[in-house]
Amino acid sequence: MANGPAGSPPTERRPVKYCSECGQPVRLKIPAGDNRPRHVCDACGTIHYQNPKIVAGALPVWEDRVLLCRRAIEPRYGLWTLPAGFMENGESMEEAALRESGEEANARLELQGLYTVISLPTINQVYVLYRARLQDTDFAPGEESLETALFREAEIPWDRLAFRTIRYTLERYFEDRRRGTFPLHEHVITANNRQPDHQPAKPPQM
Amino acid sequence: MANGPAGSPPTERRPVKYCSECGQPVRLKIPAGDNRPRHVCDACGTIHYQNPKIVAGALPVWEDRVLLCRRAIEPRYGLWTLPAGFMENGESMEEAALRESGEEANARLELQGLYTVISLPTINQVYVLYRARLQDTDFAPGEESLETALFREAEIPWDRLAFRTIRYTLERYFEDRRRGTFPLHEHVITANNRQPDHQPAKPPQM
Repeated sequence: MANGPAGSPPTERRPVKYCSECGQPVRLKIPAGDNRPRHVCDACGTIHYQNPKIVAGALPVWEDRVLLCRRAIEPRYGLWTLPAGFMENGESMEEAALRESGEEANARLELQGLYTVISLPTINQVYVLYRARLQDTDFAPGEESLETALFREAEIPWDRLAFRTIRYTLERYFEDRRRGTFPLHEHVITANNRQPDHQPAKPPQM
Repeated sequence: MANGPAGSPPTERRPVKYCSECGQPVRLKIPAGDNRPRHVCDACGTIHYQNPKIVAGALPVWEDRVLLCRRAIEPRYGLWTLPAGFMENGESMEEAALRESGEEANARLELQGLYTVISLPTINQVYVLYRARLQDTDFAPGEESLETALFREAEIPWDRLAFRTIRYTLERYFEDRRRGTFPLHEHVITANNRQPDHQPAKPPQM
């Protein structure tokens, strides 16, 4: 919740201007023994490393339907997503996925294993999404959601999904469900995580 | 490489004292709409989120032997580990695992799938380790390693391993190799990632 909007440029892409240890200006340089530029404080010597963030979430299923949330926050206000958000310090990946599902959809889940792991090197994020069984249908929108609803495969709003990570995960899920097996899927999305380009309602461009 | 020593308390555990945007002192408070304390700058409004880091690495195998590296850096100087280190911005998890294997052991690998995913909530890290096939035996210590060597199962220095994550991964690997199947293993280590407590050379305490 509130830990910066998932899918948006992470705070790490903001250059560090001042040292968080001593308040003096920092500069970008390659530290001794390193091989890439870091924000370094010449006053106190602190090196300010910046690393990818984990976005943890779930694909909650009730019978033949999947729970989606319609976003009440930017980015992608009004578009549909799976419950997911930035993993916090002090929690495990599974705890993060359960917490986000509670916060965004008031959903109680039983996790059924890690399902998709998606690196987004252009925005310094890694999505980790779990398959999950909804324990009841008493879900409801949290503060970051306008609506929460269950969708059969034919009802998924493919052209109104918030993120390519979500589309990738839903596509794998329905494929795997037909096959009856749910292996881990690893994926890398190198283009920007913009609007989905998958619009199955329209014929392909010739 | 050099991106802070994996296994050590991450820089995120260091409190933010000054705003990296404007250099003014920050204070710890719960921002509006949030539910946990953050370092917030009252001067410019920036909220300084802190999140877990990913440590990516590999379990490189040559025939019946596993490649380990003896650490030339703190923490755990002189103890053995699998090649692994902090994932950098701008790379995928697989790229991070390959890069670390190159930097620490000059090893060329073919990754064979994500194998262990280990949350360490007490130190705000997630380890992601890949099974891998060594492409040749021309490995050699990088700057962060004293030695690199191949070990059969009976030769693994169980009482001189650097991290519990590494021990967990090696234990799973040898078990799985006997079974002939290598499923993904998810795990949470909640105690501190201290010296290994697994010392199979000693009889169990009665």
